[in-house]
Amino acid sequence: MSDGNTTRRGVLRGALAGSAALAAGRAAAESDPLITELQDWTSFGGDPITARPYGLPIRFEADVIRRNVPWLTADPVSSINFTPIHALEGTITPQGCAFERHHSGAIELAKENYRLMINGLVDQPLVFSYADLERFPRENHVYFCECAANTGMEWAGAQLNGAQFTHGMLHNMEYTGIPMRTLLQEAGLGAAGDLADKWIYVEGADASSNGRSIPMEKALDDVLVAFKANGEALRKEHGYPVRLVVPGWEGNMWVKWLRRIEVTDGPVESREETSKYTDVLEDGTARKWTWVMDAKSVITSPSPQQPITHGHGPVVITGLAWSGHGKITRVDVSKDGGMTWETARLDRGSDPKALARFYLDTEWNGEPWLLQSRAMDETGYVQPTKAALREVRGENSVYHNNCIQTWAIAADGSAENVELS
Amino acid sequence: MSDGNTTRRGVLRGALAGSAALAAGRAAAESDPLITELQDWTSFGGDPITARPYGLPIRFEADVIRRNVPWLTADPVSSINFTPIHALEGTITPQGCAFERHHSGAIELAKENYRLMINGLVDQPLVFSYADLERFPRENHVYFCECAANTGMEWAGAQLNGAQFTHGMLHNMEYTGIPMRTLLQEAGLGAAGDLADKWIYVEGADASSNGRSIPMEKALDDVLVAFKANGEALRKEHGYPVRLVVPGWEGNMWVKWLRRIEVTDGPVESREETSKYTDVLEDGTARKWTWVMDAKSVITSPSPQQPITHGHGPVVITGLAWSGHGKITRVDVSKDGGMTWETARLDRGSDPKALARFYLDTEWNGEPWLLQSRAMDETGYVQPTKAALREVRGENSVYHNNCIQTWAIAADGSAENVELS
Repeated sequence: MSDGNTTRRGVLRGALAGSAALAAGRAAAESDPLITELQDWTSFGGDPITARPYGLPIRFEADVIRRNVPWLTADPVSSINFTPIHALEGTITPQGCAFERHHSGAIELAKENYRLMINGLVDQPLVFSYADLERFPRENHVYFCECAANTGMEWAGAQLNGAQFTHGMLHNMEYTGIPMRTLLQEAGLGAAGDLADKWIYVEGADASSNGRSIPMEKALDDVLVAFKANGEALRKEHGYPVRLVVPGWEGNMWVKWLRRIEVTDGPVESREETSKYTDVLEDGTARKWTWVMDAKSVITSPSPQQPITHGHGPVVITGLAWSGHGKITRVDVSKDGGMTWETARLDRGSDPKALARFYLDTEWNGEPWLLQSRAMDETGYVQPTKAALREVRGENSVYHNNCIQTWAIAADGSAENVELS
Repeated sequence: MSDGNTTRRGVLRGALAGSAALAAGRAAAESDPLITELQDWTSFGGDPITARPYGLPIRFEADVIRRNVPWLTADPVSSINFTPIHALEGTITPQGCAFERHHSGAIELAKENYRLMINGLVDQPLVFSYADLERFPRENHVYFCECAANTGMEWAGAQLNGAQFTHGMLHNMEYTGIPMRTLLQEAGLGAAGDLADKWIYVEGADASSNGRSIPMEKALDDVLVAFKANGEALRKEHGYPVRLVVPGWEGNMWVKWLRRIEVTDGPVESREETSKYTDVLEDGTARKWTWVMDAKSVITSPSPQQPITHGHGPVVITGLAWSGHGKITRVDVSKDGGMTWETARLDRGSDPKALARFYLDTEWNGEPWLLQSRAMDETGYVQPTKAALREVRGENSVYHNNCIQTWAIAADGSAENVELS
């Protein structure tokens, strides 16, 4: 029983002296009426079970919500908001606070009005109703979904003061869906000939249609036509009743209210993959087909919205790491802006292409910190610094910024988004 | 591309003829205005992102809610409701529809009023505030929670017509918490002497206090003092701000609004573990300390609330399996009341002591089915029939009924809870 916690106990005892910690045998009465006096909640019954046929968070957590940034979201319909990742733990994101990005708003599409067409280079064009889709073999997988523009405002410098705003276009859910492969095989791919150079083009039922081209190799690999997330129906804002899940690839390709899959002999070069969602480089040329979200991480606590408020001593540093190439294998944390690194504890075995949670259980005694995290994935890729990323990509793009983030921790425990020169 | 799906396609094509399936090259216009005519949702923008700071299910899913059974829940405060497992998929249960069981209602306890005391046979009695708890190393695990009385009404015969009501005192979440071991070590267990015969006694801050005794061996193994579920704060009805997680053991021990942990030299023999939550046998004696939830499974679809409505041909049989002893290793499905069995497909690698999802992708052509599922776990244990269970346990208890469930599927696709003689 005498392990590393003994030190932590000593420190905590000191920190708690006179507040919550009791010397052995001292009566709680002397210090804490919350323990010694009968409270209303122990004396009377609470809410009956009929109070919440579908439950919501308790009122004390009313600040753990999706938020937007007014100057980023001038148009309320074609818009975005951010997951409150600074206040969440573990890896699963509840649908109710998972970020939204719509190009023409969130549409209301009833199951009985839902149709999914497969056409183009297939043996048998088909149209499926929702009830048809329920008859196919399905799978469940946990995947992260990250908008290509996540952290995009930070290319030019430290701008948004909070992990929710810098990294909150990100969520992670358990999806239930039919492999795209199954539906393509149902329509038959004989007519497509050699599949190596074939693509699918997918579009949604909303006014934007948000059409995107996906290489056949990916379509036949792990793409899902999904209808549930975290066990229940997709929420309206997440594409009810059916959305595409394109594991590890940018969120824009995860078409919501999916209405059509066309097998094509090349990419469509739609608006969403030419003028948008390509990365304009320093010389004005564009990096195209930048689908995969490279390994990335962020410290969620402490962070600007989650300062250290409990004084000196033990503190838990925690955050999220993810990679569109597979599993996260290691995360390092630096307290001095990247000069020295400590390897963090990776919690549970993370699923490939899913969020991983990391922890550094450490101590803070008021010294200034420049906190950073650095993710590595199973391909050996190491999350780059912003300087390294700018060197190859310039600053013209808002997309695919996976650089190392820095939070400056001040003597009072507050945290600020800073950029190291 | 010519695999098992080809057969499925043939059948689906037949089933869809004249409705959604199109012959190659036939214009959709002839059959389906939902495809050929411009719909409102493709013409106008949908909801802006400001519509849902915290989201709820779309109105079309308003029936996917916790439900109670009026004759079971006469007292609205000391009461229960049921998870709509018939309508869920995957394995994660959203907090908003996860079953509730309160002994004195759901109390509202703010973090600043929260205290957790550790006392009894410890070196240093301690009291923690919520902020103190946030400073300890924490872990994340997915676990099922099942009420000991789940399926309890079925001991005497087939009574409740729906998987939600027969098996819905069950949920499965990703918990974030501090190992109980860590907090006990913080208080110090030197004073307890030989730990082999020591226990902890845990109680909640609600009026019932719901005190339970837990052997020290379990307390030091995998018990968590948890404060988040599925990433966000515990909901009020799930014990905000802190509840106990006792993996694989009956839900009653997962004390909500946890206020005290006492290290004792024996079990307290509280009301909740003597007059309640023991299994009265045929001869009037009681099975005591029946903590572990044995391997169990249920088919969630088709089921009485989820009949087959799509006609003959391909159908997906799906359900949940779980074991308090560890991992589910296999699930079999019978269509003839247990005379013959087919091995189901287990989806993903299931976590130990967590829900597993199984599938049987099959065909139904109107024949009557007596659907059953049978779970096996890593100890080799096989879920028993009701007859086998009654033989050793009698019918006096409402607890720990983990027998095989039967749904009778009629020619019209409806399903009914039946008991085989």
